[in-house]
Amino acid sequence: MDVQEDETLGDGYKLKLNSYDLGVDIELADAIQRIRFEHPEVRAVVITSLKPRIFCAGANIYMLGTSSHAFKVNFCKFTNETRCAMEDDSHHSGRRYLAALNGTASGGGYELAIACDEIYLVDDGNSAVSLPEVPLLGVLPGTGGLTRLVDKRKVRRDRADVFSTLAEGLKGKRATEWGLIDDSFPTSRFQAAVAERVDQIASEGPTGSGGALIGIKLNPLQFSSAVDSRDYKYVSLKFHRDKRYVDLTVRGPEPNLPTSPDEIQRRGDSYWPLQAFRELDDALLHLRVNEPEVGLVCLRTEGKIDDVLAVDRVLTANHDHWLIREIILQMARTLRRLDLTAKSFFAMVEPGSCFTGNLLELLLASDRSYMLNNPDEPIEIVFSDLNAGALPMSNGLTRLQSRFLSEPECVDEVLTHDGGFDTEAAEAAGLITFAPDDLDWEDEIRVAIEERTSLSPDALTGMEASLRFAGPETMDTKIYGRLTAWQNWIFQRPNAVGPNGALTNYGKPTQAQFDFKRT
Amino acid sequence: MDVQEDETLGDGYKLKLNSYDLGVDIELADAIQRIRFEHPEVRAVVITSLKPRIFCAGANIYMLGTSSHAFKVNFCKFTNETRCAMEDDSHHSGRRYLAALNGTASGGGYELAIACDEIYLVDDGNSAVSLPEVPLLGVLPGTGGLTRLVDKRKVRRDRADVFSTLAEGLKGKRATEWGLIDDSFPTSRFQAAVAERVDQIASEGPTGSGGALIGIKLNPLQFSSAVDSRDYKYVSLKFHRDKRYVDLTVRGPEPNLPTSPDEIQRRGDSYWPLQAFRELDDALLHLRVNEPEVGLVCLRTEGKIDDVLAVDRVLTANHDHWLIREIILQMARTLRRLDLTAKSFFAMVEPGSCFTGNLLELLLASDRSYMLNNPDEPIEIVFSDLNAGALPMSNGLTRLQSRFLSEPECVDEVLTHDGGFDTEAAEAAGLITFAPDDLDWEDEIRVAIEERTSLSPDALTGMEASLRFAGPETMDTKIYGRLTAWQNWIFQRPNAVGPNGALTNYGKPTQAQFDFKRT
Repeated sequence: MDVQEDETLGDGYKLKLNSYDLGVDIELADAIQRIRFEHPEVRAVVITSLKPRIFCAGANIYMLGTSSHAFKVNFCKFTNETRCAMEDDSHHSGRRYLAALNGTASGGGYELAIACDEIYLVDDGNSAVSLPEVPLLGVLPGTGGLTRLVDKRKVRRDRADVFSTLAEGLKGKRATEWGLIDDSFPTSRFQAAVAERVDQIASEGPTGSGGALIGIKLNPLQFSSAVDSRDYKYVSLKFHRDKRYVDLTVRGPEPNLPTSPDEIQRRGDSYWPLQAFRELDDALLHLRVNEPEVGLVCLRTEGKIDDVLAVDRVLTANHDHWLIREIILQMARTLRRLDLTAKSFFAMVEPGSCFTGNLLELLLASDRSYMLNNPDEPIEIVFSDLNAGALPMSNGLTRLQSRFLSEPECVDEVLTHDGGFDTEAAEAAGLITFAPDDLDWEDEIRVAIEERTSLSPDALTGMEASLRFAGPETMDTKIYGRLTAWQNWIFQRPNAVGPNGALTNYGKPTQAQFDFKRT
Repeated sequence: MDVQEDETLGDGYKLKLNSYDLGVDIELADAIQRIRFEHPEVRAVVITSLKPRIFCAGANIYMLGTSSHAFKVNFCKFTNETRCAMEDDSHHSGRRYLAALNGTASGGGYELAIACDEIYLVDDGNSAVSLPEVPLLGVLPGTGGLTRLVDKRKVRRDRADVFSTLAEGLKGKRATEWGLIDDSFPTSRFQAAVAERVDQIASEGPTGSGGALIGIKLNPLQFSSAVDSRDYKYVSLKFHRDKRYVDLTVRGPEPNLPTSPDEIQRRGDSYWPLQAFRELDDALLHLRVNEPEVGLVCLRTEGKIDDVLAVDRVLTANHDHWLIREIILQMARTLRRLDLTAKSFFAMVEPGSCFTGNLLELLLASDRSYMLNNPDEPIEIVFSDLNAGALPMSNGLTRLQSRFLSEPECVDEVLTHDGGFDTEAAEAAGLITFAPDDLDWEDEIRVAIEERTSLSPDALTGMEASLRFAGPETMDTKIYGRLTAWQNWIFQRPNAVGPNGALTNYGKPTQAQFDFKRT
């Protein structure tokens, strides 16, 4: 285990990191997720390290120096999502994240720290915070580092410039003065000072969370896989690798699910919204990392519209209960993971589907949607209250608002519409892209899939990253759009990854040799 | 001439394009600039083409296929700046830009069209608008295309997705329905319909511009150049190419410049603010294109603080006169060009300098500033009303607001401060980065320059693009940050520019072969 957990810190919860690489980030993401569901009583999460200088980007650097471009890009995206999940927890669930830097925090380690609410550094005459990526590696602090520096901590831009080019970083006093950390304490007082701060947070009592703060267990997900498929209980992947696409089907809930938070609590992690979206999350990560040649995901749903609506009513009615809140937030994070996945998404609305409420977000998140227009087999898409703001995109808008930027009045019209939208109504309301009839359906879908998967995958990634996030930008979208895109560019440049590049030569006796032409 | 001008269109002004490449964009930028200063009475600018299908990206494609990465990046940035300058004219000076598409407008041609206020397409059964970059070239419509599609014209994202992957584009009726154009007219009525619309705009009368709308002539800039220098009247470049930096000095105005708009009008393009900032603009473009290995610009000023303040007082007092407004807007565009230049900027504040008012923006735009702290040679930096909003960055904030994101109250404190800031006051107020004394000055500057120019130029470009634009994002910053960064990434990918890439193989008998791994 690279992440050790320690529950002895009063009402705090300590995560001790043992190294810093993708392994840690997966465990970290998992630990944070489990704290939210299993330990709702925890008010403060302290992130610290098992050995001095552990918060450094060492492992990271070697990993980045040797791994493929695709892996680097995926790695940075995943770590960014983990950091945003910490901020999501802080913002929506009121848990405070404290970085207790008992040694030097550099690179990815300091980027993890600035995703926390508060940063405390030991003042031992030696320990510092730093972002050595630019001066040592010829790349960016790309997991949110530069953006959080000026947008979250609002460090003055010229100081951010100095800090980001200073390999050795800054220590206690100056780091505090420049806003890079919140305070520093001498070694002898460090543990006590952090513990004091945790006590103070705990004494402020729990946030206004409804319900007894008794956690539920998150069990590992179960799935079976074959050559061309991967099947969870509610989510199935069916691969068409020769055609470079996959069918991703989400099955809707069973009827008569629990309606009160207490019953839901007893149901635990097998409650449909939680299990189905955890499975979806896992499937998306699987596609990103293990199926790089699959360029298109055809999103499908199966189930009863009324059963989805029943779930959404329960979630909406009890959204201030801590567990329901966490479930809704988890659904929202999963959908944002989908928005940020570098694959094309087409929603396929066919008979037997249930693109309704929370599952309708899958359609609204898609790059395009196709809905069968056959009077003999009527189908509907239906909105619920969950489409009105509970599941926002990274840009802060709902997917419906993003869709109707030019006609904002349509958002309310659609949400207050009585009943569902059949194919013609959905097309008239601007909710779907195409509505082929049953004669054209098969051909049109086949051609659309063939065309999409024939295009340059890189151009599609850049295009989708631009078209999916119209409207306002937030710190999150700046990280995924601006910072990530620049980092991806730099990750390919010879000055980073060429034989003479800084990333290639880091830690070797050889030195980087730059082509100094500025671009 | 690739851009022909035609002043016979009533109060309109026609620009006829003969082809589409960087040459056209330089002439276009120049023509727009001249319309603003030489023909202030013009209410509508019609952009049309000399021959059918001229609005296509043909020249562009071959140019992009064969030119260097650095040239592609610079080209896209410059064309983006030209398009933003059109929108700046429309927004601030009330001139309407009409794209009169008398033939197919594809790629860069359509991107030029969506920078206009209104788009009219001939309905001849053949002509279409299209963005074929993704399907044909494996790159993005990167000169604002994708961003303007969803952010300016607010085309629904799934329709934008379909349109951007459809090589042949869309014609009149559907293009109008999807919001890609404003209207279409049959060939027989096209010229008349556009002329009618121009008349309508003209009949709405001039905007509230003060002063008689009598233009001034913009003469070509004069400069002398030697191996290590380039000298304009008010701007000098002194190259230290072995050290990869340049000194860029702006000389302040003469004393006793005209104080009334009438006198300024008579002074014409030799009036200091106009000439000095035109020269600065030219110097920046020269550095971008012709001096790629120069990574650092040391910004210096020479002159009398009182003379700069006198100019700023005149500009502020007369900002509603059309010519003064155009001069201020031109200064603002030049400073934004500096913000967007992929070189590091250090401001050097030494005795004899005049970092005051409009010239103080050079310091605020810099990545860092150094101000000599020597009681024997006191120096000052001084604010004027022009620092309070007349010269905004692309993100909509002033440079002072961007600097003080964490302490917004400092903005007013600094602006209402009585008199100038000497070195210690400037440092205390957070206005400068470093204040070395006279013993340290030379060494500190030398080391700072050496360190900066030793770093990876690519990492610096990405870092500066992130740190300079903290705070809100606008359509402009989305174009330069998000879209441009993705395009730069794609411009390097083998799927675009490798031997089997789409850009490399376009127009050849060979076909692109993609590596289909999505990243």
